[in-house]
Amino acid sequence: MIYLINDYSLGAHPQIMKALSDTNLIHSTGYGKDPYCDEAKELIKARLGRSDVDIHFLMGGTQVNLTAMSAFLRPHHAIIAADSAHICVHETGAIEATGHKVISCPSPDGKIQPSQIEEAYLLHKDEHMVKPKLVYISNTTEVGTVYNKDELQALRSMCDKYGLYLYADGARLGCALTAPGCSLTLEDMAQLTDAFYIGGTKNGALFGEALVITRPELMEDFRYHIKQRGGMMAKGRLLGIQFGELFRDNLYFDLARHANGTAVLLKNGLMGGGYEFLVDSPTNQLFPILPNMVVDHLRQQVAFEDWQAAGDRASVIRLVTSWGTDEEEVMEFLRYL
Amino acid sequence: MIYLINDYSLGAHPQIMKALSDTNLIHSTGYGKDPYCDEAKELIKARLGRSDVDIHFLMGGTQVNLTAMSAFLRPHHAIIAADSAHICVHETGAIEATGHKVISCPSPDGKIQPSQIEEAYLLHKDEHMVKPKLVYISNTTEVGTVYNKDELQALRSMCDKYGLYLYADGARLGCALTAPGCSLTLEDMAQLTDAFYIGGTKNGALFGEALVITRPELMEDFRYHIKQRGGMMAKGRLLGIQFGELFRDNLYFDLARHANGTAVLLKNGLMGGGYEFLVDSPTNQLFPILPNMVVDHLRQQVAFEDWQAAGDRASVIRLVTSWGTDEEEVMEFLRYL
Amino acid sequence: MIYLINDYSLGAHPQIMKALSDTNLIHSTGYGKDPYCDEAKELIKARLGRSDVDIHFLMGGTQVNLTAMSAFLRPHHAIIAADSAHICVHETGAIEATGHKVISCPSPDGKIQPSQIEEAYLLHKDEHMVKPKLVYISNTTEVGTVYNKDELQALRSMCDKYGLYLYADGARLGCALTAPGCSLTLEDMAQLTDAFYIGGTKNGALFGEALVITRPELMEDFRYHIKQRGGMMAKGRLLGIQFGELFRDNLYFDLARHANGTAVLLKNGLMGGGYEFLVDSPTNQLFPILPNMVVDHLRQQVAFEDWQAAGDRASVIRLVTSWGTDEEEVMEFLRYL
Amino acid sequence: MIYLINDYSLGAHPQIMKALSDTNLIHSTGYGKDPYCDEAKELIKARLGRSDVDIHFLMGGTQVNLTAMSAFLRPHHAIIAADSAHICVHETGAIEATGHKVISCPSPDGKIQPSQIEEAYLLHKDEHMVKPKLVYISNTTEVGTVYNKDELQALRSMCDKYGLYLYADGARLGCALTAPGCSLTLEDMAQLTDAFYIGGTKNGALFGEALVITRPELMEDFRYHIKQRGGMMAKGRLLGIQFGELFRDNLYFDLARHANGTAVLLKNGLMGGGYEFLVDSPTNQLFPILPNMVVDHLRQQVAFEDWQAAGDRASVIRLVTSWGTDEEEVMEFLRYL
Repeated sequence: MIYLINDYSLGAHPQIMKALSDTNLIHSTGYGKDPYCDEAKELIKARLGRSDVDIHFLMGGTQVNLTAMSAFLRPHHAIIAADSAHICVHETGAIEATGHKVISCPSPDGKIQPSQIEEAYLLHKDEHMVKPKLVYISNTTEVGTVYNKDELQALRSMCDKYGLYLYADGARLGCALTAPGCSLTLEDMAQLTDAFYIGGTKNGALFGEALVITRPELMEDFRYHIKQRGGMMAKGRLLGIQFGELFRDNLYFDLARHANGTAVLLKNGLMGGGYEFLVDSPTNQLFPILPNMVVDHLRQQVAFEDWQAAGDRASVIRLVTSWGTDEEEVMEFLRYL
Repeated sequence: MIYLINDYSLGAHPQIMKALSDTNLIHSTGYGKDPYCDEAKELIKARLGRSDVDIHFLMGGTQVNLTAMSAFLRPHHAIIAADSAHICVHETGAIEATGHKVISCPSPDGKIQPSQIEEAYLLHKDEHMVKPKLVYISNTTEVGTVYNKDELQALRSMCDKYGLYLYADGARLGCALTAPGCSLTLEDMAQLTDAFYIGGTKNGALFGEALVITRPELMEDFRYHIKQRGGMMAKGRLLGIQFGELFRDNLYFDLARHANGTAVLLKNGLMGGGYEFLVDSPTNQLFPILPNMVVDHLRQQVAFEDWQAAGDRASVIRLVTSWGTDEEEVMEFLRYL
Repeated sequence: MIYLINDYSLGAHPQIMKALSDTNLIHSTGYGKDPYCDEAKELIKARLGRSDVDIHFLMGGTQVNLTAMSAFLRPHHAIIAADSAHICVHETGAIEATGHKVISCPSPDGKIQPSQIEEAYLLHKDEHMVKPKLVYISNTTEVGTVYNKDELQALRSMCDKYGLYLYADGARLGCALTAPGCSLTLEDMAQLTDAFYIGGTKNGALFGEALVITRPELMEDFRYHIKQRGGMMAKGRLLGIQFGELFRDNLYFDLARHANGTAVLLKNGLMGGGYEFLVDSPTNQLFPILPNMVVDHLRQQVAFEDWQAAGDRASVIRLVTSWGTDEEEVMEFLRYL
Repeated sequence: MIYLINDYSLGAHPQIMKALSDTNLIHSTGYGKDPYCDEAKELIKARLGRSDVDIHFLMGGTQVNLTAMSAFLRPHHAIIAADSAHICVHETGAIEATGHKVISCPSPDGKIQPSQIEEAYLLHKDEHMVKPKLVYISNTTEVGTVYNKDELQALRSMCDKYGLYLYADGARLGCALTAPGCSLTLEDMAQLTDAFYIGGTKNGALFGEALVITRPELMEDFRYHIKQRGGMMAKGRLLGIQFGELFRDNLYFDLARHANGTAVLLKNGLMGGGYEFLVDSPTNQLFPILPNMVVDHLRQQVAFEDWQAAGDRASVIRLVTSWGTDEEEVMEFLRYL
């Protein structure tokens, strides 16, 4: 079987697994107040060039999203997001379960436009409607596209115009920042958003996400919210150990770059075969449109995800590469195709 | 340093860590729909002698508690619990955050009495008050005491009398079931409660708890709730792999028995020194009352938790043994004391 | 000033105000357990030809909606509604504040189609997404249109197909059921929905809505939910007295028919003037498209609501008649226009 | 029948009913943005000697409590209250339903002591527990006792010491402020609390409560919360008209003084008969301890509420006077007793 089904079907990158094993029998303080978490936070701060941010490690993306946004907002506040946003579609109403409406904007490419923010904000004009207060973006988006620096600056300006927070879901942030031609850096993320998270689960960690809060007013008492929402690990050090490995040297970015690189190989192969794509993704998720006959053929040897129909005779499928995909696998896929 | 501070200051039992390493580079399906989870569920069901229960793996205790109880209850339902219950004190209002009141009953030994359930139920007599619907117990309790089979049967009868669910928090269930003289078995837990969880985090796992739902009406759509509350791991197999190790043979109970055994040694040593205890715990948490001078002396070589004052000159401290505590450590502690 | 701004700018119909005055100094039991509420419930049940329904009186529409739907649903359940639905737009996220996502479907005429329900239901296919469980409709809709019996039956069939509840917001139910040519009756509402409310506030009452629950499984403990959400009036009889007047004879329908009748007069006048409408409403809300110059002229003598722009030079306004609108006022408006 | 069962078994004071009738057929703006509400707010502000407060009219006590406190608090914040507090006992978990834990303190006389606040605050020491942020008091309390100025100042000081908000439930504030010997004034309430409400429902209004917010940081966007929680009346003027009558001259205080006066008469009569009381209430709720035989005798001619047993042979009952109780009724009761 060739696995192109997602970026979480393996365990952790071996270096991370080794670090977990090596530290396994050392005692440390619980709940994230251990030296591993401290070091990992310092490493990330150094990478951001910022000492004035707050960093918290949590276990998964939905958990970070619901904990952060419910902590940041008052009950009447709403979130503006693309209609394909993970929080709109694939988190089982986790945000609404904390009491907040998500206002969705149509987005064929997974990205939200400044003009959509403005329009959504202005439509909500009085106390008979929710009050938009936070813009949620994903980078990479759910269809693999990325924001470049100009685009993020434009979102930031629009948010500032209307007093909105800007929050970025970075489940695949590594792939976004290392995408070919991407002008955005991790420092930019910290400068242009009020909070964002650095995804570990889909980028080489066993599990774990690092939430970075840059806006001081959103920092107060955040650990209370982690605990209240069930996200405070007794053995919090597991998260610190992993992020220490990812950010001590360049592992986080190397792994992402590798995933993107194998995706480029895959993409070129597909384009060479004359296939088109649902959307032009420069990162590790590709959405080729294939004849149904081809899709059925693939199904026998390849693990992938069905995405949507494309007329009667063709379908969009999702192919995902990861830190664990090797070039030979991609070549084998292309040969098989 | 001698570590008697808690049962989660180490990583995982080496056998578990090895299993995680050994499977690390094998692809599997996400979100707990993998063969490891399937096997672990079968192993636990076999141990329970039941095939008609639902088992779900989650990441931590607060997460299990809030997910399960909010899934089981309607908005006007309340929970009855001992005032020392973890959900009353140490989960940052996680239950209330899902909308439910917790009615607390005074309990010096951490256990709730059938008469307290009856009294609480009868006090809430009409729609101007919440409607009690679920009784929460912890076994072991937060002060290390355990329910024997008679006691659990009595709680069950009272719950049946008033149509209440019985839910058991088993963060330290292993230590409860292997406590010296304890008449209660895992099969009993399944028979006498409507849902309970088997704690892994404090009993040798890196992290993870196994929720067992025995009452059919509480089973429907439970995975939706796990996802909505942020508890569905992308790499859910990590939980299955761990519980597979714990329940394939007897590891879960062996580790708990070891923790209890070292606690007995510790307890006997303390009693030999003439010290008394806040409560008589037969499990891995001990609460000796020590002169403040002794406590300060200990602080230099021993990691433990301050519990509460006991008059002006003495204090209660908490000492905890675990699967990782060895007898030599206990002897060293007693010598140092 | 000519008031065509809404149907709640006056107090109550004089007969209702008289009944409130006449009973003012009589003692009665609190919280809706009084003879007035009992009688009013019987009168409505008689009108429905049903003794097996539950009726509850509440104070306002948002309150009924949030109380009923949060009582009916489990946390992972979502609601399907037209995008113009009151709960989607004008209730400040009241439904989401109780934890539930509202899935909105595009609807130019305020009505939801069976095919939209099916599509929304089928899109939500697993536990990573919310589970649609209830369909919300308004009748009349927010733009004055109505469902006829065929349409409601079709919605009912679709709901049955997928195990969905059907709930109708009847803030303006009187106008819906008395609309010219409308084939739907109050009995039909009870037969075809699982719950609906009969709006009083906008149909002659000082305030108050009567929720009718027809599906037995939704009835249990409903008064707890009313109290918990802040909707149980100490002097609940005020609601019973009003609904007694509305349903003892034919007042409820007479008032609605009057509102519709004056709206027909108004509509004919506007059509005679060559004006078009945003949507073809047979009830007491009309949405004519007028040149901006005309709108500004009206503003000096007429109270109405601006609705939306219609290109650069015209606007849609909302004109509303009520039980208190007299024909002479309409004629005066038309003359002034 | 002699009615001493509660202070909401009648309608409104005739002057209020008349005002509602007189204005019934006048058009006005909806949702509380009408001249009646404006005038009533000005009248209350004049009485408070403050122009810098925000006033909002809502329909009932539970609604005010849940709307205000959920608007004021962040998700991890908890409320400290006496265990007899209305929000602890008789609001069906309305506060918890908005996500907040209520920490209850034992209180035989319904009042909370500054030392209890301090103790509760200090017990909650880190992020594993909720963070107390607001102190809730009722004045009068649920057992008719009142806070004098010294006591309220002491609570204020303690709240300031720990950064807590002080909120007062004034369902029976009129009776508290006009209690014999009470040193507290309405101005003091505004000066010493961060928010409180002036109860109308139990003091002569048909329904309605006036929330006064004095702390600027709690004012922002409050109308959104009223709407979201279902408390914004379409015909909001009904509340303004009533509070206009209550505060244009002295009606609010006159009615309360009358209720207290008849209670004194009643209390003296009971004391003359040698009866004792559960608690010494100076206001319109009395809790005499009567032999069960006497209670049964009363039941035939008097409407009252059973409160609790007082041993095997006696019971506490609750007798309540109101603006509508006349002296002759009290005398008749005493004769019958």
